Amino acid sequence: MPSRPDTDDPRLGDLSEGEILKAILSRTAQATHTIIGPGDDAAVIATPSGTVVATTDTLVHGPDFRLAWSSGFDLGWKAAAVNLADVAAMGARPTALLVALAVPRDLRLSFVESLADGFREACAALAPGCAVVGGDLTVSDVLTVAVTALGDLEGREAVTRSGARPGDTIAVAGELGLAAHGLAVLFGRFRDGETPIPVDPALLAEGERQAVAAQLRPSPPIGLGLFAAVAGATAMMDISDGLALDARRMAAASGVTIALDGSALGGDPVRALAGGEDHALLAAFPPGVVPAGFLVIGEVRPPGEQPLLCDDAPVDVSGWDPYRDWDSAAG
Amino acid sequence: MPSRPDTDDPRLGDLSEGEILKAILSRTAQATHTIIGPGDDAAVIATPSGTVVATTDTLVHGPDFRLAWSSGFDLGWKAAAVNLADVAAMGARPTALLVALAVPRDLRLSFVESLADGFREACAALAPGCAVVGGDLTVSDVLTVAVTALGDLEGREAVTRSGARPGDTIAVAGELGLAAHGLAVLFGRFRDGETPIPVDPALLAEGERQAVAAQLRPSPPIGLGLFAAVAGATAMMDISDGLALDARRMAAASGVTIALDGSALGGDPVRALAGGEDHALLAAFPPGVVPAGFLVIGEVRPPGEQPLLCDDAPVDVSGWDPYRDWDSAAG
Repeated sequence: MPSRPDTDDPRLGDLSEGEILKAILSRTAQATHTIIGPGDDAAVIATPSGTVVATTDTLVHGPDFRLAWSSGFDLGWKAAAVNLADVAAMGARPTALLVALAVPRDLRLSFVESLADGFREACAALAPGCAVVGGDLTVSDVLTVAVTALGDLEGREAVTRSGARPGDTIAVAGELGLAAHGLAVLFGRFRDGETPIPVDPALLAEGERQAVAAQLRPSPPIGLGLFAAVAGATAMMDISDGLALDARRMAAASGVTIALDGSALGGDPVRALAGGEDHALLAAFPPGVVPAGFLVIGEVRPPGEQPLLCDDAPVDVSGWDPYRDWDSAAG
Repeated sequence: MPSRPDTDDPRLGDLSEGEILKAILSRTAQATHTIIGPGDDAAVIATPSGTVVATTDTLVHGPDFRLAWSSGFDLGWKAAAVNLADVAAMGARPTALLVALAVPRDLRLSFVESLADGFREACAALAPGCAVVGGDLTVSDVLTVAVTALGDLEGREAVTRSGARPGDTIAVAGELGLAAHGLAVLFGRFRDGETPIPVDPALLAEGERQAVAAQLRPSPPIGLGLFAAVAGATAMMDISDGLALDARRMAAASGVTIALDGSALGGDPVRALAGGEDHALLAAFPPGVVPAGFLVIGEVRPPGEQPLLCDDAPVDVSGWDPYRDWDSAAG
């Protein structure tokens, strides 16, 4: 939704690549670790401790977001947040983002300006010192935002998903199921037939407003990833596909069983187990160690028949596989 | 073009994300600098000299490639090569690639397997020791390959595009205009009306075959980027949008005029000046220093009225702006 008249807000197809990049780059903050920022063939980022953490995650219009629901700001914020969460889940401090944008020609300049604002503000709020240091702009009929995030371990070992040991405590930082609740509100209340329509905040109760915000502009606890690593987390990952699926992945990678306590999963345990896109941090800690900000939700046991239990019963919630679940026709 | 029966070559929409990733990851080589490879939230790459070079570049079906002309192998190779060239242009050694794939549901598994092969073989041929260390898979109606390349400066300063000084020699490594010639052959000879049709190699003369190969599977001189840096290059960039446009960018960034010698630009100087997508390396060297593999094509002069001259005349070839030039309807 451009906030200025169309005449002052050209379509991207009527601008050169250089004109669009200039508008975007004027909104980029300086990253603390940048040696060479945008404008050359590549960026150069300091890695004083001798390693770099790198991850990539893409948002595609349709399966990952809808323009009727997400503003440019929302989209930039979310694309930053989901990538920052992957860096945090290794126990690293995010240092830099690279953003590959593929944009339709009829998109307005104000949209990509807001997108750049969303990237900047998400970094400022969730990972101070991190910023966009490079990118690429191309044209596509499908708006696509592919982000790579880099991070620094500051001399620590990376916290992988394979280090959980029997006797460890399983804990989580961040929301479980809130983003999925938000998606359910959007699909249930803000469509005309199959077509998404803009969200009217006046129609939302306070809890629904929070859930929709968690879906559109998630705020995973990025700083707690470092905190968990310093505290001695034995395993960590971000919960992008739902607690059930991701805890199973941690159990499989670690060769253990993870036993959850259903009473710790809030008022709607099925939603907490199945709901994706919260990007909460799931971590295993040695006995007696649970840092502030993490909530204990279970324990690690020796490998058994089932990789995942909840209240000692197998969990038959499958989690979120966007590839299977999305249908371009059904929406 | 699947080389096996359809029954043995499922559509991606009929597979889970895990099944597709397994097929891709079985084709990934080990990168020399990898500490943690694919399979966790992020990869960890060694950066012994304390910095990392990072760049991103995307290929989108339509403006950047056509499936009638490019095989999966071609596409993976090209996506690797164009990103490796940006790392090389900073004087760095490529160490790792991250690949964000957005794929239509009806694409065949064999296509992404060949794509993975193309990435692996391009790295092996152009940048030994570099490999894919991470990625992301999502669904999109438009096949999109967004790559981030990382590199190591091995203790050297980065070679930017802004360091060219009057008196320096301008030289180039790699082809000028060959990829554009290949694109012209494809557009001129392998379309049915506006629709691209598969290339029949039997219809191509030897020079045309080379040109089409340069367009579909470019082999920029990645190793010569390091070589130029060690030799003392004062400025360097890869020529992705044509010599005229990119030399102008170097002249502007360096605050100089670049004067080219038309007789050094081969038999078709206009094609050499205008043609994009060769990813040759354009470099400035101090007087008397031109490393093997680089061809002298001009000199750096103090800033004048024109940033770029060819045979002492202004150059009115504009170069390649895919954003302006591509039209999804016209193709």
